[in-house]
Amino acid sequence: MFKINENYLKLPGSYLFSDIGKKVKAFTEANPDKKIIRLGIGDVTLPLAPAVIDALHKATDEMAVKETFKGYAPDLGYEFLRTAIAENDYKTRGVDITIDEIFISDGAKSDSGNIQEIFDLNNKIAVCDPVYPVYVDSNAMAGRTGEFLPELGRWSEVIYMPCTEESNFAPELPKVEPDIIYLCFPNNPTGSTINKAELQKWVDYANKAGAVIIYDAAYEAYISEEDVPHSIYECQGAKTCAIELRSFSKNAGFTGTRLAFTVIPKELKCGDVMLNSLWARRHGTKFNGTPYIIQAAGAAVYTEEGKRQTKEQIAYYMNNAKVIREGLAAAGYHVSGGVNAPYIWLKTPGKMTSWEFFDYLLKEANVVGTPGSGFGPHGEGYFRLTAFGTYENTLEAIERIKKL
Amino acid sequence: MFKINENYLKLPGSYLFSDIGKKVKAFTEANPDKKIIRLGIGDVTLPLAPAVIDALHKATDEMAVKETFKGYAPDLGYEFLRTAIAENDYKTRGVDITIDEIFISDGAKSDSGNIQEIFDLNNKIAVCDPVYPVYVDSNAMAGRTGEFLPELGRWSEVIYMPCTEESNFAPELPKVEPDIIYLCFPNNPTGSTINKAELQKWVDYANKAGAVIIYDAAYEAYISEEDVPHSIYECQGAKTCAIELRSFSKNAGFTGTRLAFTVIPKELKCGDVMLNSLWARRHGTKFNGTPYIIQAAGAAVYTEEGKRQTKEQIAYYMNNAKVIREGLAAAGYHVSGGVNAPYIWLKTPGKMTSWEFFDYLLKEANVVGTPGSGFGPHGEGYFRLTAFGTYENTLEAIERIKKL
Repeated sequence: MFKINENYLKLPGSYLFSDIGKKVKAFTEANPDKKIIRLGIGDVTLPLAPAVIDALHKATDEMAVKETFKGYAPDLGYEFLRTAIAENDYKTRGVDITIDEIFISDGAKSDSGNIQEIFDLNNKIAVCDPVYPVYVDSNAMAGRTGEFLPELGRWSEVIYMPCTEESNFAPELPKVEPDIIYLCFPNNPTGSTINKAELQKWVDYANKAGAVIIYDAAYEAYISEEDVPHSIYECQGAKTCAIELRSFSKNAGFTGTRLAFTVIPKELKCGDVMLNSLWARRHGTKFNGTPYIIQAAGAAVYTEEGKRQTKEQIAYYMNNAKVIREGLAAAGYHVSGGVNAPYIWLKTPGKMTSWEFFDYLLKEANVVGTPGSGFGPHGEGYFRLTAFGTYENTLEAIERIKKL
Repeated sequence: MFKINENYLKLPGSYLFSDIGKKVKAFTEANPDKKIIRLGIGDVTLPLAPAVIDALHKATDEMAVKETFKGYAPDLGYEFLRTAIAENDYKTRGVDITIDEIFISDGAKSDSGNIQEIFDLNNKIAVCDPVYPVYVDSNAMAGRTGEFLPELGRWSEVIYMPCTEESNFAPELPKVEPDIIYLCFPNNPTGSTINKAELQKWVDYANKAGAVIIYDAAYEAYISEEDVPHSIYECQGAKTCAIELRSFSKNAGFTGTRLAFTVIPKELKCGDVMLNSLWARRHGTKFNGTPYIIQAAGAAVYTEEGKRQTKEQIAYYMNNAKVIREGLAAAGYHVSGGVNAPYIWLKTPGKMTSWEFFDYLLKEANVVGTPGSGFGPHGEGYFRLTAFGTYENTLEAIERIKKL
């Protein structure tokens, strides 16, 4: 008689963004004349860059002809893409990553959900609070998080690192020693970052404690300040303690095109065992590569035109971020983020909870955002707006909020 | 101090196809003048069908324009594709599958590797011997297979169902009751199939034992005989015991394009819990959809032109299968498969082991195949050839083998 993985039943309710979707749907049905502006989900709106489109067409034509048709891709991904990544994302920043330390995948969500598989089930994880839900949920599914305590909104066996206004929404080093530390900078949802000296402290801590850092750098392309590191490997000693996750979703608009990569340096070991080898085995056994045409499109992001065009897209979104940040600040809101990230984190006015402010904003301004409490208990009383809308909509949304 | 998932260390040596790759590479380097013909790995060689290429171009153009650009895809996949699947793969065969029972993914390898996650770690699996290695390896990584016993080439806690010449390479019902049964028909590697009455016995057995069948139907498009079922849901009662895996890799040449789907009927439950809900949660948490342009390409497979063109491709490969089967039979080999599947399974001549025959064929005929023993102990003394080469190469390979 088969049994299910009971850990799944411990997961609380439904996913944040489906709850939002239901509320918005109900409101739209009751108010069909209202024009809703969505600054909630972190999905891009600009079309793919011309260089990427050209590469997709070209690669498609290759798939149409016997001589250039591509079947199964190499396990780790095509060398042309891994070479472009090593050169452009790392070598230019003085970091030496070899191409067999780079694993091409279909998304940072898959990678951040799957990476826990190569670790022992008794390892203890530490996460920021608030945090992107996938880190905790994927560990909960594996049985690494104990019991969910609804009254606290927390799991019994997870180490939470509060990110509060007092610390500029950066986490403090945990008091209990974790085995696996999830860090995400620039941060989703708060939009906060830490500088190189601060990140170095985390690397030193991890090396000393024998912990591994899973460093989610999906938003690195939005960094505008000089001393904010783009890669954790800019820190001394990171290669012996850190795995880095990267994505093409936000820097090149690939949310619906699906491409990402994970870096695992060969120096990162548990005893004699390289985590690189374990991930290679996982990749080779439970994954069969990213489509050739998508990898070709990814390589186009690193061409001169690709770089220029995707930089323009990021500038467009960051201009939206400026509109939101400055507009809300002028209207008297406490705001942070939006300088090195496409997310603006604001304190709800009065004593409103995150969901009360969500309802208020939806009803009074017809603007959709994301309740901070959906990312963890310390997100309560906060709210996330994203810069991924159109300029016109962003401007109008802020005008509406200002008028409240 | 972090620890690794020790189950990974129990996995024996390297992957079958990388061993083959190394041997072929060494031979090619030592004999640069020899023309090697590869009938080993199950990778397609024909380019994508024109209807698919057109759809890729069209979808790429949509991604270039703001108004038709697509960001994150719906969790389960686009409705247009799931509707086409429900209509064409199921309704036409009298099977009623709703679109929320269909989950679009990036490949049957991912699905067959990941599906075990929703089951209890103490569940016991049963597999055919020989078998596609991913079923066992993914369960071994999760810790469900006990210890690997090198002298037997088996795992201590796996129920093996031998597929021998006596039973036409079909498995017999297991003697010990399993919780999860992996079946693959048309079979990889043997190319064997079972008819509807025989499959019905498995469904009845599973329903009675409270076992779940994971039915890999990746090769269903190659079925040529009338009474061989294309879907397990053609059998009475299959919806309460079976999950079906399908792929676009072999029926439409998507090995390098990546598209597949899994069907989990809502009737399939453990107590009150629908496996459909668990997989939906897994899909929503650890996966972010297949690229829009690839899903659009998949839908093109179901158009009238798409169907005609992909049928022609299959006919091309099945003609190769005929060449191999008849050619080898004429040369005195014992052969099976190749009628409802692109794989031909042959008995090695004399008392050669599978690897001895591999070396012999490589050296004397410069033909690469796959040693049957690589798929399990009962594959010893057998050898797999695939029909996925070009017609010209297939013809030449068989001529060379005949001359030995």
